[in-house]
Amino acid sequence: MEYILDFHKLDRDAKNLLKEAGSKIRSSFSSELSIETKADANDLVTNIDREVEQFFIKFIKSNYPNHLILGEEGFGDEITSLSGTIWMLDPIDGTMNFIHQKRNFAISLGIYHDGVGMLGYVYDVVLDELYSAQKGQGAYLNDERIPFLEATSINEAVIGMNASWVVPNEHIEHEGMIQLVKDVRGIRSYGSAALELAYVSTGRIDAYMSMRLSPWDVAGGMIIAEEVGAVSTNLSGAPLKLLGQDTFFVARNGLHNEIISKYIRLK
Amino acid sequence: MEYILDFHKLDRDAKNLLKEAGSKIRSSFSSELSIETKADANDLVTNIDREVEQFFIKFIKSNYPNHLILGEEGFGDEITSLSGTIWMLDPIDGTMNFIHQKRNFAISLGIYHDGVGMLGYVYDVVLDELYSAQKGQGAYLNDERIPFLEATSINEAVIGMNASWVVPNEHIEHEGMIQLVKDVRGIRSYGSAALELAYVSTGRIDAYMSMRLSPWDVAGGMIIAEEVGAVSTNLSGAPLKLLGQDTFFVARNGLHNEIISKYIRLK
Repeated sequence: MEYILDFHKLDRDAKNLLKEAGSKIRSSFSSELSIETKADANDLVTNIDREVEQFFIKFIKSNYPNHLILGEEGFGDEITSLSGTIWMLDPIDGTMNFIHQKRNFAISLGIYHDGVGMLGYVYDVVLDELYSAQKGQGAYLNDERIPFLEATSINEAVIGMNASWVVPNEHIEHEGMIQLVKDVRGIRSYGSAALELAYVSTGRIDAYMSMRLSPWDVAGGMIIAEEVGAVSTNLSGAPLKLLGQDTFFVARNGLHNEIISKYIRLK
Repeated sequence: MEYILDFHKLDRDAKNLLKEAGSKIRSSFSSELSIETKADANDLVTNIDREVEQFFIKFIKSNYPNHLILGEEGFGDEITSLSGTIWMLDPIDGTMNFIHQKRNFAISLGIYHDGVGMLGYVYDVVLDELYSAQKGQGAYLNDERIPFLEATSINEAVIGMNASWVVPNEHIEHEGMIQLVKDVRGIRSYGSAALELAYVSTGRIDAYMSMRLSPWDVAGGMIIAEEVGAVSTNLSGAPLKLLGQDTFFVARNGLHNEIISKYIRLK
């Protein structure tokens, strides 16, 4: 029997799961300003990560038994190929922010079919902002359509990146990064790849890069970014490996190519 | 006739002004996701900056005719000494964020009497989060008391700073900054001194530095930070000049001294 995917139903189910998971996370905060010891905070994030991942797994195994799950906490499936339908989930992207700030983190989810990103979600739990996209159908922030991104120039661009890549490091020639910092209008660093992808998608920043990310960090955001005309690759400009860690770079079309060719020299 | 200041009344008036100014700013956003050309956006920020500053000036001149105003837009008074009561106001701190993001900016206000910070406010207009403090009375986020900050260590610290100070620059020896980036747990950059002071005050980051700020950028946040035990100075560790531009550094007690002595070497 052939299995026909209903992406509209899948989209509704995914959104309901995300909202419910968001409620669980919010209610885990005893008080926004309460201070826990670092050990307590680490336990908290680990417990919530696990709880959210298992909440998704339970639903998926019951409702979509032939789908697979690739999740940060590792309770999902052993994935060795991109065949079939795979849910790529990071229950809390931006763990350090979760611990230190209880804000600026997101649930990241991408649903891929035979290696093609079909449904993407980044859910900013604290602000209740759900960024979402369905391949070919445009991207949304909650119910509002996100406009297609217009071109921008290097000297008007604001780039999301970590200061670690501007200092001598094992991943990238930092001289190129120094030049980039000098040439652009501004640098920001928010500490969540998923949220920074959402920020690129809504034009709040113009590019974002990282030296090492896992597929579940960016699987959702990449689908959203593509729907508004941003380009996601690894830092060599090649398609991202979705079965392991890779470098990562997303930017508005045009800017993407310019930054990779002029500033990026990987070691 | 001696003039007795009623700081409780002043506090109520300041909060009402901030909330009303916040409404004006929010209603100036035609739509959260609308995209203007850069020129339009620059006009918008300039108009709103002016409008908010003049809104404050009008109120202050009517209700507190002997108070002075030091504001970014320059419609206030010519201030040459810190005698008397001075309102230090930045109508939009985080201008680039205002233009590119329509979030992550704040109204910053500090009320100083004979050079002593008495009332401090940072109002995150979009999130409707008002950080406030009255000297000696503790600090608040909306109606919730902000806890006193506990000590932390360099290797557990998250620092707010711009990547520009990690590359060769005219202000600071960047080798020390490189070492700092390597030693701490994380670097963040949000692009609003006032909000980063609020973040330090609520323990979301542990320190924040900048090479050049004006008094109205930090006048409000410094009063809030002091009430939770953070220390604000310039980057030489001396009291901040409040009558002109200066470097700036705020951190939790202990961390403040350690970072200045181990990592900061100004040119």
